[in-house]
Amino acid sequence: MRISELSQRTGVPVPTIKYYLREGLLPPGTSRGRTQADYGDDHVRRLRLIRTLIEVGGLAIADVQAVVAAVDDETLSLHGAFGVAHDAITPRHGLGDDGERAAAHAVIDELVDGVGWQVRHQSQSREMLADALVMLSRSDLARSADDLRAVAEEAQVRARADLAAVPTDIARSEAVEYVVIGTLAGEAMANALRRMAQEHESGLRFEPPPGNLTAGRP
Amino acid sequence: MRISELSQRTGVPVPTIKYYLREGLLPPGTSRGRTQADYGDDHVRRLRLIRTLIEVGGLAIADVQAVVAAVDDETLSLHGAFGVAHDAITPRHGLGDDGERAAAHAVIDELVDGVGWQVRHQSQSREMLADALVMLSRSDLARSADDLRAVAEEAQVRARADLAAVPTDIARSEAVEYVVIGTLAGEAMANALRRMAQEHESGLRFEPPPGNLTAGRP
Repeated sequence: MRISELSQRTGVPVPTIKYYLREGLLPPGTSRGRTQADYGDDHVRRLRLIRTLIEVGGLAIADVQAVVAAVDDETLSLHGAFGVAHDAITPRHGLGDDGERAAAHAVIDELVDGVGWQVRHQSQSREMLADALVMLSRSDLARSADDLRAVAEEAQVRARADLAAVPTDIARSEAVEYVVIGTLAGEAMANALRRMAQEHESGLRFEPPPGNLTAGRP
Repeated sequence: MRISELSQRTGVPVPTIKYYLREGLLPPGTSRGRTQADYGDDHVRRLRLIRTLIEVGGLAIADVQAVVAAVDDETLSLHGAFGVAHDAITPRHGLGDDGERAAAHAVIDELVDGVGWQVRHQSQSREMLADALVMLSRSDLARSADDLRAVAEEAQVRARADLAAVPTDIARSEAVEYVVIGTLAGEAMANALRRMAQEHESGLRFEPPPGNLTAGRP
């Protein structure tokens, strides 16, 4: 298909597609004469991955490049590519001073040892967890490794199901896309539902006007 | 305490504190002469809430102002104040065209009706969920209201526990802070643990070097 059709099918404007081509995020199409190129389903899929990373993951172009490079680097195992993608989409704020972060990482190390997980020391998910622990600790809601253990074990059950659901008969780029979308959309879905449920429970608990409970939505 | 001690106790630089005072995010201290003012524990708590909203919630000053105003507005119920705070910290990207969003909202309405939740139509958590549904739908992973029901029921169990844990013997500003930190830190903690567990499971599944499984962390 031509670039105009690629734009139509993906909803990404032609100038944006040209920008991604220049930045190397999108591989060039098959040349058809001097000024035209032909694009295929791979381009549609790649554009979808790029838009997901930018719009939902909030990634900068440099981080998108890192993910795309990992997808295209066949010397990297699928596990390695997932790690690069995960790191790129994991928010970290570096909350706390050296002492606070060291305390948080001590809790995390103890937890990881306790449950026997293989998680890289430089994994950004450790930094994300450290941010949460610093925040809780500052609000006098500090969590120990023991406190986290039940949540961790529950997380592992879900993670096993998450990974089992990754199709194995698809291209590597699709598998990475699947993991990125599964993580971002899965978490957004679960978090949004929890917030909606919190709103409902908050209404019941902190504003219980008896007559309204059976009435329509406010 | 003086502004210098307030800065020391909270880690927020004096010029930043003065900026918050000018913007009305922080109430003025008790005047002690022409150029000095006295600050108390309320200021420490308020600064903590502001920093959490900015650093972890990623909020702009205008959104922080909305939350702070809701905390201070005694005509608003606690449930109402929670709603303002929740809306401010809820990410929404407005993914999808009109048709895609209408389809997502139809699924959400059906779900909310089915589980009998009271969730405002304008609640930002609905928009957050719509983003996730649009994303999944674009990746051929569309979810129906029936698909969501089990996740929603699980979310409700957690939400009930979340709300039951909100202390009722504290100031309203502390209750709002508690909900904000509980939501942000609680989700970050759960999401980070799930990502760490996914990394572990991904290693087992997609890069199983038998000798390494019992060895130390890589």
